[in-house]
Amino acid sequence: MHAYRSHTCAALTAANVGETVRLSGWVHRVRDHGGVLFIDLRDHFGVTQVLCDGDSAAFAELEKVRSEWCIRIDGTVKARDPELVNSKLPTGEIEVYVRELEVLGAADELPLMVFGDQEYPEETRLRYRYLDLRREAMQQNMTLRSDVVASMRKRMWDQGFREYQTPIITASSPEGARDFLVPSRLHPGKFYALPQAPQQFKQLIMVSGFDKYFQIAPCFRDEDPRADRSPTDFYQLDLEMSFVEQQDVFDTIQPVLTGVFEEFGGGRKVDQEWPQISYKDAALWYGSDKPDLRNPIKMQVVSDHFRGSGFAIFAKLLEQEGTEIRAIPAPTGGSRKFCDRMNAFAQKEGLPGMGYIFWRDQGEGMEAAGPLAKNIGPERTEAIRQQLDLGVGDAAFFLGGKPKAFEKVAGKARDVIGEELNLTEKDRFAFAWIVDFPIYEQDEESGAIDFEHNPFSMPQGGMEALLGNPLDVRGYQYDLACNGYELVSGAIRNHKPEIMLKAFELAGYGEEEVKSRFGALFNAFHYGAPPHGGCAAGIDRIVMLLADEANIREVMMFPMNQRAEDLMMDAPSDPTSDQMMELGLRIIPQD
Amino acid sequence: MHAYRSHTCAALTAANVGETVRLSGWVHRVRDHGGVLFIDLRDHFGVTQVLCDGDSAAFAELEKVRSEWCIRIDGTVKARDPELVNSKLPTGEIEVYVRELEVLGAADELPLMVFGDQEYPEETRLRYRYLDLRREAMQQNMTLRSDVVASMRKRMWDQGFREYQTPIITASSPEGARDFLVPSRLHPGKFYALPQAPQQFKQLIMVSGFDKYFQIAPCFRDEDPRADRSPTDFYQLDLEMSFVEQQDVFDTIQPVLTGVFEEFGGGRKVDQEWPQISYKDAALWYGSDKPDLRNPIKMQVVSDHFRGSGFAIFAKLLEQEGTEIRAIPAPTGGSRKFCDRMNAFAQKEGLPGMGYIFWRDQGEGMEAAGPLAKNIGPERTEAIRQQLDLGVGDAAFFLGGKPKAFEKVAGKARDVIGEELNLTEKDRFAFAWIVDFPIYEQDEESGAIDFEHNPFSMPQGGMEALLGNPLDVRGYQYDLACNGYELVSGAIRNHKPEIMLKAFELAGYGEEEVKSRFGALFNAFHYGAPPHGGCAAGIDRIVMLLADEANIREVMMFPMNQRAEDLMMDAPSDPTSDQMMELGLRIIPQD
Repeated sequence: MHAYRSHTCAALTAANVGETVRLSGWVHRVRDHGGVLFIDLRDHFGVTQVLCDGDSAAFAELEKVRSEWCIRIDGTVKARDPELVNSKLPTGEIEVYVRELEVLGAADELPLMVFGDQEYPEETRLRYRYLDLRREAMQQNMTLRSDVVASMRKRMWDQGFREYQTPIITASSPEGARDFLVPSRLHPGKFYALPQAPQQFKQLIMVSGFDKYFQIAPCFRDEDPRADRSPTDFYQLDLEMSFVEQQDVFDTIQPVLTGVFEEFGGGRKVDQEWPQISYKDAALWYGSDKPDLRNPIKMQVVSDHFRGSGFAIFAKLLEQEGTEIRAIPAPTGGSRKFCDRMNAFAQKEGLPGMGYIFWRDQGEGMEAAGPLAKNIGPERTEAIRQQLDLGVGDAAFFLGGKPKAFEKVAGKARDVIGEELNLTEKDRFAFAWIVDFPIYEQDEESGAIDFEHNPFSMPQGGMEALLGNPLDVRGYQYDLACNGYELVSGAIRNHKPEIMLKAFELAGYGEEEVKSRFGALFNAFHYGAPPHGGCAAGIDRIVMLLADEANIREVMMFPMNQRAEDLMMDAPSDPTSDQMMELGLRIIPQD
Repeated sequence: MHAYRSHTCAALTAANVGETVRLSGWVHRVRDHGGVLFIDLRDHFGVTQVLCDGDSAAFAELEKVRSEWCIRIDGTVKARDPELVNSKLPTGEIEVYVRELEVLGAADELPLMVFGDQEYPEETRLRYRYLDLRREAMQQNMTLRSDVVASMRKRMWDQGFREYQTPIITASSPEGARDFLVPSRLHPGKFYALPQAPQQFKQLIMVSGFDKYFQIAPCFRDEDPRADRSPTDFYQLDLEMSFVEQQDVFDTIQPVLTGVFEEFGGGRKVDQEWPQISYKDAALWYGSDKPDLRNPIKMQVVSDHFRGSGFAIFAKLLEQEGTEIRAIPAPTGGSRKFCDRMNAFAQKEGLPGMGYIFWRDQGEGMEAAGPLAKNIGPERTEAIRQQLDLGVGDAAFFLGGKPKAFEKVAGKARDVIGEELNLTEKDRFAFAWIVDFPIYEQDEESGAIDFEHNPFSMPQGGMEALLGNPLDVRGYQYDLACNGYELVSGAIRNHKPEIMLKAFELAGYGEEEVKSRFGALFNAFHYGAPPHGGCAAGIDRIVMLLADEANIREVMMFPMNQRAEDLMMDAPSDPTSDQMMELGLRIIPQD
């Protein structure tokens, strides 16, 4: 017989009754029923009930074991009495009578119970991660993550992609976030960097002629702490293709993601139609470039109804250039109580408030209520109602000013309204491509032009477009939104050195700077670069959505805490003076 | 029609004759046959011959293109004249008459030709890696690597393993090699480290109850330059299993590796029987713990034949304790010329030389020749011949002293003899498990005891064994040798804290040091650790063997040079003073 097990703890059924078996696992729970010990023995695969009474030679030993001891038992499979069969458990028909016991690994007093649902502070969970991970929910999250990644890989291979590994110790790549640096010992005073993403490498792989690349790629960004992201590293499904246009990239990644969401979504609805929404429309309709389309609310411009109206605040606002009034329709939100609550929400978010109108049944017909309706009068109010396609029991909220100033709050309000009115569908994954991102943005104060996203995207219209107003230039650049999250980001790249130089010039970077910051790519583009594009999907985020978890640490095996510390491994820690000497570094004493 | 291609450059056959097609790719070669331009158009998938004459509107444009320009052509598929069909090419039946041309990416003058077999200095190849990688051999090596890794993954999943990702930014893990450090910005003066291997994490995953783990894992070691290894990172197929003994690990990895070698070995023979050879026997028989078993030579101890013999050097040597005489049999090596050459080889390797005997046909019978035979006389010579099972035309070489002092040279001599006499089989992968490694080794000068390999292995015999002579303790620790390389290394781990402490104590480490160096693991072992073990296989090495390459840089996409510099990306480089400030570091000026 095998030294540790003849079966896993999920394997035995009524068919095994009478057999002598060997099981190994952890003591999940011990119950003492007056001289009979019952133990739920747990391994990765399941739980088997084992028992022992005074007639067994193992009894005295078994009395000593405690929760989470790792043990090996030999015993005989017995059928449970019919009334004791547990139909929820694969092994619920049987139990194992223990004849021999070996303690494989005893346990000290536990800082964290594996059995049960007790909550523990995150510090405890991370410090004793190996106990935390034994809990059923964590076992499920980790296997889910593993299965999702494997499924992504398979789907990419099925589409003709190969996985190529790119360097992890490499050069600083100024892509917006902060690099992690790695001091060089052979070149003291010089530093490598960990890649923020394999962006330049995957583009170089295209220039190298490999046609289709993907990688489950670790990415490293020295980020300030935030609940929903790792302060050090995260994983992307990174892909790149040669000789493609934007739609080709969409057609590649969509079946991969719908496949994964269908496979692991637990029956939740997975949208098959992915609308393409321009960045501009997304801002207007949803107040966000990662809208939650499970929420049917779509905002609209209603400026004309307020221009010159009796509502002086909006009427005056509209006299300024670049201002707009936008409405958030709120079907079924037609009560003063709800409208006031939303108004208060807007105030909490830093706006003066949201005007509103709501429509109620007033016996002999519909009445538009709320201060706004009174100010602008029934005709304009009715025109608004018709534009927004609302009726009795519905409401609409209004925000005015320069869109940039209120768009974000409008988006949040849309979310809250959707949630509170139960308009936002549950159990559904709703996707949308956000396209036509502007290449540049202008700093409001300095007026300076800089890249809005990353500097690698091909401007729509190529060189010609760059000769006009930079702020009008759209890129072949896209994000995929799902349920309010950005899941994917990508672009068709700018592979022409002269267009690249011009694009950087508009953002204030000279040729020398392009060469020093993106030299490898810039040089490579001088040797027959193919048109290419791709995208990267955030794996941690996808697993979070599938596992219905709000914290990234629930879907990572050994995460850092929010102070970027690994409490279990004790990192970061003090270097030795030998190490500092070898690296040619000195630590500046901190105050 | 698609913007860039209707077909790849490997797709068109006689079945497409008459069709209008669009191809994109690189200009592999241009030939001008008096007014007709022939271009081999190449993409990742293959080559298609396209042509153009003065009748085409594209002719003037096509005349301008040069090697490695990336172009798109539209044209008509034509059958080649029967005598011009190239049966070696999938597209050899056709050619495409070009009607339209678009230059997608022009190329400057090339520092490195893609077409042809010209050799370039490694610096050039690495600096212009994107051109180097376009060459057929590199395309093949990279796709081979990608395919090998995918096959390994599939085989691991098929055996019930899941892949789990372990942290890359983590704590220093003193496993023998030098860590790469990563300064922390949030904790100035403190450092993370990149993992030398996921050793501790995979063991913690076992303690966390996951049963079977694998990972295609990047490993980081700050190594001094050497031709056959990367100075920064390399990849392992890393695996770990709970509730297993040594043989279980063997039974898991053997089918994975035989499968991979059969799938990608190009018909070379893959040994199905993997002998298990003790570390001690391997040293004796092969002078190496990674023997090349394609070479049939097995060394033997022949001390008795020299004890008190007329060969004074050996006879005297044997009077010292711990000395031995060993023979390297050399079938078919029976000529003075060959024996003298081998003797010279040993001298070049720093030994006084190798004595030899060779046997020749002397008319009326066999004669043993060489100085040694004369010194020890016919009887002893004959006894040696019989022990080594040699005959006319064969030779044997002899080395004496303390085995440690000559074993390595003996192993090298065995390799050279096998090669020169053509005894070493080609086109074969021969595997052997080297087992029973000693846990400890003794420093010859100081007499200090230290770990021979890594400190994580379970001693055979457990605690009891540690109470005897440390140098007698063998571990459940193993390597896999293949064709003279170490492909795999692994162990059943020491999962009992009290045995761990004792094992470290013997090597001179106190409890505090164990806690500070391996705290996470040591703590975890106090909470119900399962018995577990595993191994790691070197992926770069496996791909090198399969690709028949001697340099690791031939099987890596973007390798560093031997000074650990990335010439293409310009790494390592100078940090900015802002970066140094943020990290709280100062660079010590170098002389």
